[in-house]
Amino acid sequence: MLELKVKFIDIDPNYPLVILNKEDMADIAANTTDRVEVTYGNKSKIVVVDSTEKLVKKGYIGLNRKAMKYGITSGTKVFIDPAETPESVEYIKKKLKGIELSRKECNTIIDDINANKLSDIELGAFVSAIYVHDYTPKELVAITERMVSTGIQFKWKNNTVVADKHCIGGVPGNRTTPIVIAIAATCGITIPKTSSRAITSPAGTADTLEVFCNVNLTMKQIEKIVEKTGACFAWGGSVDLAPSDDKIIKAEYPLSLDPEGQLIASVLAKKKAIGSNAVVIDIPYGFESKVDSLENAEKLAGKFKMVGKKLDMNVDCAITHGNQPIGNGIGPVLECIDIIEVLNGRGPDDLREKCLELAGILLRLVGKGDIKTAENILDSKKALKKFNDIIVMQGGKKDIDLYKLLGKYKKTIFAKSNGKVTKIFNKQITRIARIAGAPKDKGAGIYLYTKLDTNIKKGDRLFDIYAETEFKLKHALYLLKAKNPVLIEAKKGILVEEI
Amino acid sequence: MLELKVKFIDIDPNYPLVILNKEDMADIAANTTDRVEVTYGNKSKIVVVDSTEKLVKKGYIGLNRKAMKYGITSGTKVFIDPAETPESVEYIKKKLKGIELSRKECNTIIDDINANKLSDIELGAFVSAIYVHDYTPKELVAITERMVSTGIQFKWKNNTVVADKHCIGGVPGNRTTPIVIAIAATCGITIPKTSSRAITSPAGTADTLEVFCNVNLTMKQIEKIVEKTGACFAWGGSVDLAPSDDKIIKAEYPLSLDPEGQLIASVLAKKKAIGSNAVVIDIPYGFESKVDSLENAEKLAGKFKMVGKKLDMNVDCAITHGNQPIGNGIGPVLECIDIIEVLNGRGPDDLREKCLELAGILLRLVGKGDIKTAENILDSKKALKKFNDIIVMQGGKKDIDLYKLLGKYKKTIFAKSNGKVTKIFNKQITRIARIAGAPKDKGAGIYLYTKLDTNIKKGDRLFDIYAETEFKLKHALYLLKAKNPVLIEAKKGILVEEI
Repeated sequence: MLELKVKFIDIDPNYPLVILNKEDMADIAANTTDRVEVTYGNKSKIVVVDSTEKLVKKGYIGLNRKAMKYGITSGTKVFIDPAETPESVEYIKKKLKGIELSRKECNTIIDDINANKLSDIELGAFVSAIYVHDYTPKELVAITERMVSTGIQFKWKNNTVVADKHCIGGVPGNRTTPIVIAIAATCGITIPKTSSRAITSPAGTADTLEVFCNVNLTMKQIEKIVEKTGACFAWGGSVDLAPSDDKIIKAEYPLSLDPEGQLIASVLAKKKAIGSNAVVIDIPYGFESKVDSLENAEKLAGKFKMVGKKLDMNVDCAITHGNQPIGNGIGPVLECIDIIEVLNGRGPDDLREKCLELAGILLRLVGKGDIKTAENILDSKKALKKFNDIIVMQGGKKDIDLYKLLGKYKKTIFAKSNGKVTKIFNKQITRIARIAGAPKDKGAGIYLYTKLDTNIKKGDRLFDIYAETEFKLKHALYLLKAKNPVLIEAKKGILVEEI
Repeated sequence: MLELKVKFIDIDPNYPLVILNKEDMADIAANTTDRVEVTYGNKSKIVVVDSTEKLVKKGYIGLNRKAMKYGITSGTKVFIDPAETPESVEYIKKKLKGIELSRKECNTIIDDINANKLSDIELGAFVSAIYVHDYTPKELVAITERMVSTGIQFKWKNNTVVADKHCIGGVPGNRTTPIVIAIAATCGITIPKTSSRAITSPAGTADTLEVFCNVNLTMKQIEKIVEKTGACFAWGGSVDLAPSDDKIIKAEYPLSLDPEGQLIASVLAKKKAIGSNAVVIDIPYGFESKVDSLENAEKLAGKFKMVGKKLDMNVDCAITHGNQPIGNGIGPVLECIDIIEVLNGRGPDDLREKCLELAGILLRLVGKGDIKTAENILDSKKALKKFNDIIVMQGGKKDIDLYKLLGKYKKTIFAKSNGKVTKIFNKQITRIARIAGAPKDKGAGIYLYTKLDTNIKKGDRLFDIYAETEFKLKHALYLLKAKNPVLIEAKKGILVEEI
């Protein structure tokens, strides 16, 4: 045991961390990333320890200012003891060995992640273990259930059909959610939708809908809005659904690991926590999307349905084409333009078709109609009215002039040769839109004028790039030089062109 | 690109890190653990970025004070651009998938680790990948060679036989190195020995020899001492041999991952870097040692020899019993007592026997004799003289009174029943010795009076615990209550005792 004086230092770590001088570390035979128990009065807490040679002198302990809430001030004396590593570290190692974890072990891992007990190296090993061995079906159910039960859970009136839809992502512009939700809510389905913000994409649903209205809703606001309109558009981060999810995503991010089991657990845990009992999952597959083949998309769908069943949720999956963007707009405001077009019965054909297909599946799943019903609702502009009702309830205005919100700096890219569009690179589209400023700059992004298999003549408009600053537009154009996201190849056969 | 003002903050991370406000992060579409390029004047550096809501305000960048060496002061303006993740992150992911890495990819990983380019999550994934898939023979050779070439390499006169010995660890008290080195140097073998400090054991060879003399030697000091005496006892950390090794060990530590391939690479890279061409590896196996079975010990020996051959080193392995401590003393001073006893021709029998076996193998390997030669040298006290010569050259004194250096607080543990010693728990011995203060408190540790298969009567002395403070002794005794490291079981048969 050591008695040390508190020194506040400016650290803001992801997990509770204290910093000791190397000599004090040696004195309690502790190494960096070991745990120590810090005792102050009758309170104690187990934290990760890091060492320093200079930042904290011998006899002192470096704490974050958050410790002030326990009444600790600069110079306060606290006691330090070596402590055990959390049990979950042993289970992560077990999983690395490929051994199936028990329900209790799965629970402990989720609990320790929730309590920020794991260091970054340990979290890196956890996501690696799941990536290499993936969850077994039993583990998958256990992990998902624990993710649900460790966060907030919404309760709706008995026998309410609560529906949801979700896309596993990877396809730029694919903004079906607002339209599908508006159609479903028009049919009297309860659909409290929470969505994410972009991590690596040009916009998340929450980023896009924020153009229209406030999406940072409290639990109470969600309940009130859903009671009035049947639906809402909330940012998932503003409510505490399956809180371990964000922490796991953060650890997956640096290596862009996205193990299938964790994807399923993350999605279904949030759906279960919001109280859904009927869920449609959109699984796009193809070139440069998350799932590479129809076969793998079908396997993934099977797992979603299996876990859904175990959690008493009726899950249906729509396997869709993901080899090019959906709609024309990519980036928040540009996507809003597409949404309003479709809600007015016009709009990019592919976005309209996809929304109707998904809404049709959802309506069938809850016995409230089919794709025909969805089409009638959309074309009668009832869905537009419902959409406007929701955004007004969320503090937004209807009929805003979206074009005024577009980035002032614009560059149109034209075709340099005749041919056919044979590839659209989703990842390059994403990169350019993000460098142009999306999603932070709402008016930034790409507006596409073409799709796969279109015949193109030299000089045809391919796409516009929008940015809110000249610098970002230049940066995006610089990126464009490395690779044009729209690939035009000459028609097959020997003769390319006769001049 | 963002222009930000510098604010110095008290962080001391393991890799170059800057801290930005969340809003500025969003402005360049960066997430936590992404890389950014910081430009100041005509200098720029790629660093990991972390986000904060409060610690650093919008418009500022939080830097460690080390940035002062570039002429940066508080308020200096620097430019920030998004930057690519290091290539090695892609290769780590490839290895997680089980795909063999090319030599170039192995090189990049070691280079990026050396340059501190990887974040903790990425390092956690790296050690996990090696743990799950281990290095292929090709990777193992490539990694080892790169570990060598990225650090300091000693050059000795042409045709000098440079020998070394190494134990893979896991057995408390196993302090053969000083004795084997003294015997070998007496035979005229050049043996510039570098050793480690303890990470999880009660003492590393460097911790123990530090009781006699200074072990923090520079490259020049090592050369001078070896020229005069033929050998030295240096702490490996004081010279820059295979510098990536320490960084990898640090990442393996939290999960106590010790993948076989990395173990081999780490050991042989250091031997190659010091210029060895003949190496004896001690591989203890058995209950609670690193290797569990003879079969696995033989496999490991085969790999050591294979990599050794590729690196032009003559490697021989001694597979030894590791199911109990070697010698009686565990902890720096207590081990020194054993060493001096053995060098005087007495000493714990098992330590003496093991040293002679290892020295015999080493002498045979370089054609300078065998176990008989070693025994003659030891019993003639020539090895003791050589040992004293070395420690005096390293600033130590011979014939110091080791008993005076023992911890003042001592407790003897007696047998509570008759029987036979059927197990000695290496891990519990280690835990108790460390809690008692070893290796920081040189006089702390355990002195064992018994070994496996010894017949014990109730009241027999089993071991002493030494500590330098009363509190640490109490703490060790508390740990002892949970499990006595010496297991005594009644003799087999129905009758246990007749009273």
